[in-house]
Amino acid sequence: MQANESIPYVVGVDLGGTNVRASVTDISGNLYGEGRTDSRAMDGVDATVAQIATAVADAVSTSGVDRSRILGIGMGVPGTVLPDEGIVAWAPNFRGWDGVQVGEPLRVATGLPVIMGNDANVAALGEYTFGAGVGSRCMVMFTLGTGIGSGLVIDGKSWIGVSGCAPEMGHQIILADGPRCGCGRSGCLEALAGRDPICFRAARKAHLGRSTLLLERSGHDLRYITPAMISEAAAEGDEIAVETLNETGYYIGLGVANAMNILNPDCFVIGGGIAGAGDLLLEPIRRTVEVNALYSAVKACRIVRAQLGDDAGILGGAATALQRFGGQG
Amino acid sequence: MQANESIPYVVGVDLGGTNVRASVTDISGNLYGEGRTDSRAMDGVDATVAQIATAVADAVSTSGVDRSRILGIGMGVPGTVLPDEGIVAWAPNFRGWDGVQVGEPLRVATGLPVIMGNDANVAALGEYTFGAGVGSRCMVMFTLGTGIGSGLVIDGKSWIGVSGCAPEMGHQIILADGPRCGCGRSGCLEALAGRDPICFRAARKAHLGRSTLLLERSGHDLRYITPAMISEAAAEGDEIAVETLNETGYYIGLGVANAMNILNPDCFVIGGGIAGAGDLLLEPIRRTVEVNALYSAVKACRIVRAQLGDDAGILGGAATALQRFGGQG
Repeated sequence: MQANESIPYVVGVDLGGTNVRASVTDISGNLYGEGRTDSRAMDGVDATVAQIATAVADAVSTSGVDRSRILGIGMGVPGTVLPDEGIVAWAPNFRGWDGVQVGEPLRVATGLPVIMGNDANVAALGEYTFGAGVGSRCMVMFTLGTGIGSGLVIDGKSWIGVSGCAPEMGHQIILADGPRCGCGRSGCLEALAGRDPICFRAARKAHLGRSTLLLERSGHDLRYITPAMISEAAAEGDEIAVETLNETGYYIGLGVANAMNILNPDCFVIGGGIAGAGDLLLEPIRRTVEVNALYSAVKACRIVRAQLGDDAGILGGAATALQRFGGQG
Repeated sequence: MQANESIPYVVGVDLGGTNVRASVTDISGNLYGEGRTDSRAMDGVDATVAQIATAVADAVSTSGVDRSRILGIGMGVPGTVLPDEGIVAWAPNFRGWDGVQVGEPLRVATGLPVIMGNDANVAALGEYTFGAGVGSRCMVMFTLGTGIGSGLVIDGKSWIGVSGCAPEMGHQIILADGPRCGCGRSGCLEALAGRDPICFRAARKAHLGRSTLLLERSGHDLRYITPAMISEAAAEGDEIAVETLNETGYYIGLGVANAMNILNPDCFVIGGGIAGAGDLLLEPIRRTVEVNALYSAVKACRIVRAQLGDDAGILGGAATALQRFGGQG
């Protein structure tokens, strides 16, 4: 896009355990320029802040946008964030980040005001503002990855709870005394529909000797099955892959139904890697929700795939910054 | 209390399947006068509206408050309510009420503006405004009765969802493929910790032949065990009653933990009949929450008993009316 000098801009930053990506964004979610660096997650706050500042500088310099028109930076962080304090309370993928000021050194390094948020919350605000949630009043989003992240937007504002840890919907218990979760508890949604349980589910079925594309795709070692392999095999009609998505969709659907009963939103967005399976996963989710959520809650809510893909983090950061610094929303 | 002519008043109405109660209330939650009638739930909307109007008129005439100082009526209804439309969408205890205008005929019959809400939501706003939730930012309430009602207040406002059915936390699924619920689904919190499952739990233990006060208290017919009998026997140290409360507290605790992970509130209020057991129920709830909710969510939230008792409905109605007609909150 060509920059327009009469409208405000922000910088959206997507901070991951491996890479940092940044782009300048306008109020319509158009991207201008790009910066991309290694996040140096194991080298401490100073090193990572310097990397982020480099990505931001590269994004600004390649954007064609006058620096004076940029209101600030919005950044999603994989962890628990206290946005008003600029503090990262907990970020398991970054060494030495727990309870640490990140906003202020980043402001000093870039000369721009900074607002941070949890990456799943930020992605949800991105979908609400620029993607699948546009036009909704209350939106819930699940991001299906290694774990299950979630975000909640009510009347235009992210709800992150009184200490910044909401909405941890991946750790709702849907099967009391069920399988052990990575968090140490039992029967969490994530323990039934996170990356590992999905792959184990497929491997268990394949172990029973039925023919499946997954055997060859995994190099005849079922430990190497990935969600992407399952999605692809299901799209080709592989029975075990389809069953795996059906059963996974059942558990995700119970989590969606619970969130729907509790919050009665008008839009539910499903994102993350395995959501790439599309209707092969969304249909079992929808069928489960139809029988497990209240009729009036089901009737009021559409269940849709995320739209922003790889740009969800950047656009979510941008939406967060526009809300904080631009008077949007 | 003696009425003060310089402050505004409202009428709080508690509509139940058997009785209607009304009282005039000031902004501090003091009650003035009372009206009480049969609700004539099976005789149609007109009959019940006339009964409510009688209760309101009695409350006003016995209150000593000048009628001109009364801003309006707030009423909790056991069902799904569309507050802005004055419509009751669903009220299983009242014949002919589904999808019916109730606010307008009540306004005509009383000459006062009317705001309605679901009884559990309204009770939660009452506790938030006048009771156990005072001073909190985000409050969740469970009302443990025949079913499990719930309410959610965020930044002073009840959140009832986009179609008025939130937050149905009693129908969150905590045990996939678990026991059948009255709603037709399986494994809902209510199917594990509603009135009947609590009584069945005690009866099953007693059937196994261990000595228990419940045998005599139920007239040697275990079908007649009530939650009140269980609470009383537990207070006297009855082993089976204590075990029943412990197991019930475990399931309620899972529901509380889920709500806490999803919403990260700073106050959780437990009300309703069986909550009368006090710490005998609250302690197993707290212990379950401590191990099943995120540490930072647990740390941020107190779990307390409801304070308003039998006046929760009236004071909740009053809080709702003060918010709508009095510019409170």
